[in-house]
Amino acid sequence: MKGFASDNYAGVHPEVLTAIAEANVDHAVAYGEDDWTARAEGLFRDHFGPTARTWLVFNGTGANVLAYRALCRGWEGVICAETAHVNVDEGGAPEAMAGVKLLTVPTSDGKLTPELVDLRLDRVGDEHAVQPRVVSVTQSTELGTRYTPDELRALADHAHAHGLLLHVDGSRLANAAAGLGVSLAATTTDVGVDAVSFGGTKNGLLGGEALVLLTDGIGEGTAFLRKQHMQLASKGRFIAAQFVALLEGDLWRRSAAHANAMATRLGERVAAIDGVTLTQEIQANAVFALLPAGVADAVREEFRFYTWNEATGEVRWMCAFDTTEDEVDAFAAAVEAACARVPAAR
Amino acid sequence: MKGFASDNYAGVHPEVLTAIAEANVDHAVAYGEDDWTARAEGLFRDHFGPTARTWLVFNGTGANVLAYRALCRGWEGVICAETAHVNVDEGGAPEAMAGVKLLTVPTSDGKLTPELVDLRLDRVGDEHAVQPRVVSVTQSTELGTRYTPDELRALADHAHAHGLLLHVDGSRLANAAAGLGVSLAATTTDVGVDAVSFGGTKNGLLGGEALVLLTDGIGEGTAFLRKQHMQLASKGRFIAAQFVALLEGDLWRRSAAHANAMATRLGERVAAIDGVTLTQEIQANAVFALLPAGVADAVREEFRFYTWNEATGEVRWMCAFDTTEDEVDAFAAAVEAACARVPAAR
Amino acid sequence: MKGFASDNYAGVHPEVLTAIAEANVDHAVAYGEDDWTARAEGLFRDHFGPTARTWLVFNGTGANVLAYRALCRGWEGVICAETAHVNVDEGGAPEAMAGVKLLTVPTSDGKLTPELVDLRLDRVGDEHAVQPRVVSVTQSTELGTRYTPDELRALADHAHAHGLLLHVDGSRLANAAAGLGVSLAATTTDVGVDAVSFGGTKNGLLGGEALVLLTDGIGEGTAFLRKQHMQLASKGRFIAAQFVALLEGDLWRRSAAHANAMATRLGERVAAIDGVTLTQEIQANAVFALLPAGVADAVREEFRFYTWNEATGEVRWMCAFDTTEDEVDAFAAAVEAACARVPAAR
Amino acid sequence: MKGFASDNYAGVHPEVLTAIAEANVDHAVAYGEDDWTARAEGLFRDHFGPTARTWLVFNGTGANVLAYRALCRGWEGVICAETAHVNVDEGGAPEAMAGVKLLTVPTSDGKLTPELVDLRLDRVGDEHAVQPRVVSVTQSTELGTRYTPDELRALADHAHAHGLLLHVDGSRLANAAAGLGVSLAATTTDVGVDAVSFGGTKNGLLGGEALVLLTDGIGEGTAFLRKQHMQLASKGRFIAAQFVALLEGDLWRRSAAHANAMATRLGERVAAIDGVTLTQEIQANAVFALLPAGVADAVREEFRFYTWNEATGEVRWMCAFDTTEDEVDAFAAAVEAACARVPAAR
Repeated sequence: MKGFASDNYAGVHPEVLTAIAEANVDHAVAYGEDDWTARAEGLFRDHFGPTARTWLVFNGTGANVLAYRALCRGWEGVICAETAHVNVDEGGAPEAMAGVKLLTVPTSDGKLTPELVDLRLDRVGDEHAVQPRVVSVTQSTELGTRYTPDELRALADHAHAHGLLLHVDGSRLANAAAGLGVSLAATTTDVGVDAVSFGGTKNGLLGGEALVLLTDGIGEGTAFLRKQHMQLASKGRFIAAQFVALLEGDLWRRSAAHANAMATRLGERVAAIDGVTLTQEIQANAVFALLPAGVADAVREEFRFYTWNEATGEVRWMCAFDTTEDEVDAFAAAVEAACARVPAAR
Repeated sequence: MKGFASDNYAGVHPEVLTAIAEANVDHAVAYGEDDWTARAEGLFRDHFGPTARTWLVFNGTGANVLAYRALCRGWEGVICAETAHVNVDEGGAPEAMAGVKLLTVPTSDGKLTPELVDLRLDRVGDEHAVQPRVVSVTQSTELGTRYTPDELRALADHAHAHGLLLHVDGSRLANAAAGLGVSLAATTTDVGVDAVSFGGTKNGLLGGEALVLLTDGIGEGTAFLRKQHMQLASKGRFIAAQFVALLEGDLWRRSAAHANAMATRLGERVAAIDGVTLTQEIQANAVFALLPAGVADAVREEFRFYTWNEATGEVRWMCAFDTTEDEVDAFAAAVEAACARVPAAR
Repeated sequence: MKGFASDNYAGVHPEVLTAIAEANVDHAVAYGEDDWTARAEGLFRDHFGPTARTWLVFNGTGANVLAYRALCRGWEGVICAETAHVNVDEGGAPEAMAGVKLLTVPTSDGKLTPELVDLRLDRVGDEHAVQPRVVSVTQSTELGTRYTPDELRALADHAHAHGLLLHVDGSRLANAAAGLGVSLAATTTDVGVDAVSFGGTKNGLLGGEALVLLTDGIGEGTAFLRKQHMQLASKGRFIAAQFVALLEGDLWRRSAAHANAMATRLGERVAAIDGVTLTQEIQANAVFALLPAGVADAVREEFRFYTWNEATGEVRWMCAFDTTEDEVDAFAAAVEAACARVPAAR
Repeated sequence: MKGFASDNYAGVHPEVLTAIAEANVDHAVAYGEDDWTARAEGLFRDHFGPTARTWLVFNGTGANVLAYRALCRGWEGVICAETAHVNVDEGGAPEAMAGVKLLTVPTSDGKLTPELVDLRLDRVGDEHAVQPRVVSVTQSTELGTRYTPDELRALADHAHAHGLLLHVDGSRLANAAAGLGVSLAATTTDVGVDAVSFGGTKNGLLGGEALVLLTDGIGEGTAFLRKQHMQLASKGRFIAAQFVALLEGDLWRRSAAHANAMATRLGERVAAIDGVTLTQEIQANAVFALLPAGVADAVREEFRFYTWNEATGEVRWMCAFDTTEDEVDAFAAAVEAACARVPAAR
């Protein structure tokens, strides 16, 4: 039985594996100068618009750190939410690898606003302080919430008005776009986003992410920096082929929409259970909830998942492209049974 | 027709692709806490001995930079050959990512010796100079040569006598071991090597390398550093499965020995051609040669390969696990024909 | 008329200048291997105890960054208050120069407590998170408050119990010790502090700070790192001579106690003014206050000082070793006059 | 008796100490926003031309590293001589602090030429290699030689033709200009130099260097980077005052010319001694020589100096602003006596 620990626990979508096998013919030029990479880059232009310049990388940490390094000069930093993955879950890579200070702000739902951004604009021009250069948001967020295109437009306009760039950590951008029912461009290029870390791995790839720069004139030297940041694959065609599979048809949307639907279903099921409280709106493929004491551990005997907040006991349940309705229902039933069984739940 | 540009131009060995597909069942814990990774780690212990501690990473740059960062403290550096890949082909990653200065020495054949190492030991204890901590050699070297176990033993003894560690950039370690007809341990653990960047990609993997630490007590914090260096795969089982395919049977040796045999065959064929001079001994899967003026360009109309030294015109021809005898013979014939055809060749 | 902007606006204490002139005879070995440096190092042992190992550096940023780099390994970070100088006023040096992530916690008075430290201990052992290694406090704090020896002892015990080290950013340690009426050791070595950035510049030096390591076995390689961090003076005797002047007699305490007394006097004077509210206890040489709207600007026509918090209008007034009673009284009178004059003050 | 170990062993020129004392009145704005700093900056414009933008820093390592960081982007590096101070004597600071790889070339006299620069231009545009951005020369060199203005002009033209900048590590620029009998601009601005690390300490300052950018449009963010690189003095007026003393009259030239004259005198004296061979032309304040075996140690019983090359026994003798003719003569006599006395000398 699959658990609900992480969309990273899922494997490779069969169509992706097929694409890898299809790319495995003949020799191909290494380091991304192959036909599959060119094709993938074309697909990124199809989805994000003709200005999109793409660098395929290994993982999300690589995409984000490369983005920051490519967009920030030595004295510049990145405004982000305290809960941002780059701040809490990337082992200090932005600081240690890119030398970039993160200028964090607290949020309740993982989402920045222009007002929150303003909190970190008070030292502009002061040589004693790191100068903000990038506003970095996660779409969908680490808390399973998502920005509307209008919210992103407001952030982009605000960033640009202050000479900043807007970066989207899009390790789950497909989930956001699918949830919004819009194209990838509609939640990025069309609303003024300058740069995207586009995630593939959590959406069914074996392993592959992409740094996509949307605004002309930014990111000089990114190709050099990708190599230096240890993110240039020698057999690049095999990352590219995965993105071809994801983006050539609608696999990206099918998979993301399915994961979202499973999260919605799970949310509906558990919200009806006495004692269970959802703590965030379900806008992508994550469900956050508070459970009666003891319930989480009881359910964990059967299903794997993470406690998000040790202090409050809040749990996180993630759905993936391959989560089934039966698994959701079985899981919800397990939660319900545990709630009924555990004394503290009553 | 395949060329002889790089063993990175080859694709994925079919047995490796099969292993990936076999690993693609169910959910598995992310970030390397899965069964396939445990199995791969066990195989590394089988090959390198019970002290081997392994961290799977994405690529060779990652393995080398992680090795240096894990083994050097902030004021320490790495002694290597001027021709070392880490010095000339990794985009400044050791310096920019790990902050490590490379203390280079010139060589004629890409190989360090204790005497060459001594050239960089003259500033030990001097606070104005980076302190050597690691001697880093490439096995087989960038010039297609290889160290004998005795040569490595001498380097290891010399390094240890001066408080240094010996690291092997083994992106083609399999080719060296196959060429020597010995085990992987015989050219590493058994002769005192402390750390290995073990290459898989050039030997038929889709993409995967490993940092293997052989000496107890070195490399504290390597797991944290791997994450920070953007080298921790979320779906780690798919890198692990490739190494299982490579190391569980003799695929690593079969593939490497075949590539070596093709290089030897190619060397023999072209050495017999009037006007062609081999410039390095053929001890792995590379052939280095000087050609009459105009020949390289003529052959390139049909086959892809690189000029190694623009000043002298020296070329490099690499063989891969999937290079065939027919391809070698056709290529040698093309060289011969070009030599006959090009006026300057006579 | 001197202002109250910063103790850095003051010049050099005459006794310090005399010491510099006295050191200016003959040639002396460069880079700190001179007699004046040896004498200064001895004085640090006199004040901080026999285990004190001292490295003289140029400025406070240098001392702090060197401390973090010397005490943290690549994957480790520093717990500090959000208001810490290293977090807000050092241009991102800890991150960009030492690669160290600051793990910040909010405070009301600039002071850490064991409970606040605990907030950043929840990810110990998790490879996705920077591992805390150092707890860094400022004594006296950026808000003019100070830790009691007992408070520091509690922090040190707590840090040590979790395998952490306690570092004191002591750019105004003399003010704290003078205010507490204790020795320098009593607020550092004796209560378990492991490392101190000891400030001289704000206390009357021309320019000079010291990294003092108090605990045996920590900070290997600090001499090498000082050079690499661009903090090794070639004519080291002239930094050393300043510290000899400061520490050989009681100049450090005389100057600091005087500055503290002036702040206390100023606090008493302005607290009595209708409309003025002190916002922090005066425990060193700083006064923080809220003023009626318009008052700060009015007073600034005559005296220079900084607004600390643009949002609230809170101001900061610093006293120095050379601030006089007359200047304090004149300044307080100016504030009183402005409060009386400015309509909003009523 | 003074030795000939280093011009850093000398103290502070009395006129400099006087200037420091004169600057020690009243309070002054910290961090370089004071009148003395403005005056020093004006003097740099007087000497280097109206485009000169100056940042005062603590030491030469700081000036050089700041220069490289200000001029290079993350993927760029610096071409320099293998013997360059930045390569051998700055503790790896360029690599560890600025992330900059040094692209070194061997020289016989410490001087780069356009042809030598070309050796490192072969990888331009190749994403696997650090891209050259700065050519960095030392004037006068670490070997006591100097570039003529024409030689620098040729290097600047060559650099600019390839999109590179020319940086001068001028820790002894005054010695070069004095030796050439030209202005500071004549050996920098007028011949196309883009950036200078201008040394003061070795020429009689207590401690102070300056990064001077001469070309418009380069070095954006240098003020921020100076702070981040721990090179911003809080009481900046006291570095500035030293430069005022050095540059307002002709102290810089008087002191440097005197040191040069002493080196010339010493060279003439020792060249006449049987067994002594000068190994470099004397063009600044250094003398390099080979001595009969045993002589160096014999002379060292009385005078301190360094062996430059342990392998050959070559020694370096430096003269300073305060070296006297008597001291030179006494030293030469000691060498002569030792040569006569030591058996191996005959």
